[in-house]
Amino acid sequence: MRVARISHPGGCSHATVEPDGYALIEDPFETDSVLGASRVHHTGVVVPLSAARLLAPVAPMAVVGMAHNTGPADRALSPQAFLKPVTTVTGPGGPIPLPTDIGLVEAEAELAIVIGRTSSQLTLDQVADHIFGVTIANDVTARNLQHSDPLWFAAKSGDGWTPLGPWIETGLSLAAIGELAEHLTVDGVDLPASSTANLARSVAECLVYVTSVMTLHPGDVLLTGAPGRTGAIRPGSGVSATIDGIGTLDNTVIAREQADTGAEAVA
Amino acid sequence: MRVARISHPGGCSHATVEPDGYALIEDPFETDSVLGASRVHHTGVVVPLSAARLLAPVAPMAVVGMAHNTGPADRALSPQAFLKPVTTVTGPGGPIPLPTDIGLVEAEAELAIVIGRTSSQLTLDQVADHIFGVTIANDVTARNLQHSDPLWFAAKSGDGWTPLGPWIETGLSLAAIGELAEHLTVDGVDLPASSTANLARSVAECLVYVTSVMTLHPGDVLLTGAPGRTGAIRPGSGVSATIDGIGTLDNTVIAREQADTGAEAVA
Repeated sequence: MRVARISHPGGCSHATVEPDGYALIEDPFETDSVLGASRVHHTGVVVPLSAARLLAPVAPMAVVGMAHNTGPADRALSPQAFLKPVTTVTGPGGPIPLPTDIGLVEAEAELAIVIGRTSSQLTLDQVADHIFGVTIANDVTARNLQHSDPLWFAAKSGDGWTPLGPWIETGLSLAAIGELAEHLTVDGVDLPASSTANLARSVAECLVYVTSVMTLHPGDVLLTGAPGRTGAIRPGSGVSATIDGIGTLDNTVIAREQADTGAEAVA
Repeated sequence: MRVARISHPGGCSHATVEPDGYALIEDPFETDSVLGASRVHHTGVVVPLSAARLLAPVAPMAVVGMAHNTGPADRALSPQAFLKPVTTVTGPGGPIPLPTDIGLVEAEAELAIVIGRTSSQLTLDQVADHIFGVTIANDVTARNLQHSDPLWFAAKSGDGWTPLGPWIETGLSLAAIGELAEHLTVDGVDLPASSTANLARSVAECLVYVTSVMTLHPGDVLLTGAPGRTGAIRPGSGVSATIDGIGTLDNTVIAREQADTGAEAVA
């Protein structure tokens, strides 16, 4: 089942993605007792595909990324993670604003885990029961800044730097999540594909680590790391992150000055 | 004016702190146009002091801390910051749970800035108009973990590791905020006092830096750094952070196992 969040004439709603439209559902992250598709309750309203715009499929309180999880050699390191502000989250089609003179900025196509139940100090065998589903993330990173910014705050925290979407796929097992092909395309050029099988630590190991440090809540998001090639982006770039079995997340890079002008025009 | 957030028989509300009780106000962080005391609208209800419990005075979407801002030598470094999850926020009296075998954990008494208006790419002369007020933070940090955790995720992100309170003082100018005496007391022992005058970068400089990276919103919190002595804490410790002109923030350290048992007992 594909769970999206949409903007439509009636407001902003969660919905399942059906061939003929978006079937609205109650907020699946409001409650904390049951998981996955079993918590999807349709309201009976269907919004035509043409009358809605996809938003980021969740509005998390925490966005946690795994650091150094991009290949077998990283297993020699202690597990490490970082936080991104929730203001980095944007939806499919949302712009990725870049300041001028920021140097190299890269897109990273990553599997993102959406938490379904309050998760604290999970053991490996508890993980599957705490995942609502998976989506695609673009973990935009200012590579040059990482040198003068060892905590990665400036390198990871720009507004709109975590596109998420296009929807949450709820039907994949942990085993299936562990071997999903990942593709990144920048300005129409396909970079070499990779797979979640190449992550240094599995999704279950990542969630055991992160929840040993902090409690995650329904709707929180874990970015699992980018084992594939990252792609340089600049204002004007179009970037697409694809994970087989989920879908494709498309975004456009703009100059931050454009975003500021846009905000003023709307206000 | 002192703005608190309280739990009382009628629910959870913002309020001003008066000699005879808490005078309830509308949520001062809902709107984004006016600042400080001018945005405080009393509802007419007063809750007796004895009928209420102080909560963290804000529920931020972002908690940003300044790194390496503890003395003049730090000015030689690039400005750096880190994020703490919102699950670290707890109120006056809230427990600070520590896992066993985590090594040295320290309390840090810090001035915390509470944002009043959407703040993006601020200039130095815009800062004063974007601050709602100031409160006290205890930036609990697992010192030993910082060695194996260069991004400080595990060292800063434990549940309850950012006590905030006891209330927000709205009446201080930027100049006054720049010379507030800070004190930390652990288990009744007063550590040598310091002052916000000893911060490597001023509050205004910190906000210019952070908002050059990301947008802050009303209710978001900036931890300015701890120029004073930090204090080792362990389960059973009582810790008090005092800033002259604001108040005192008291918390108790517990073993995480106690917190887990408590949560189960409530559920």
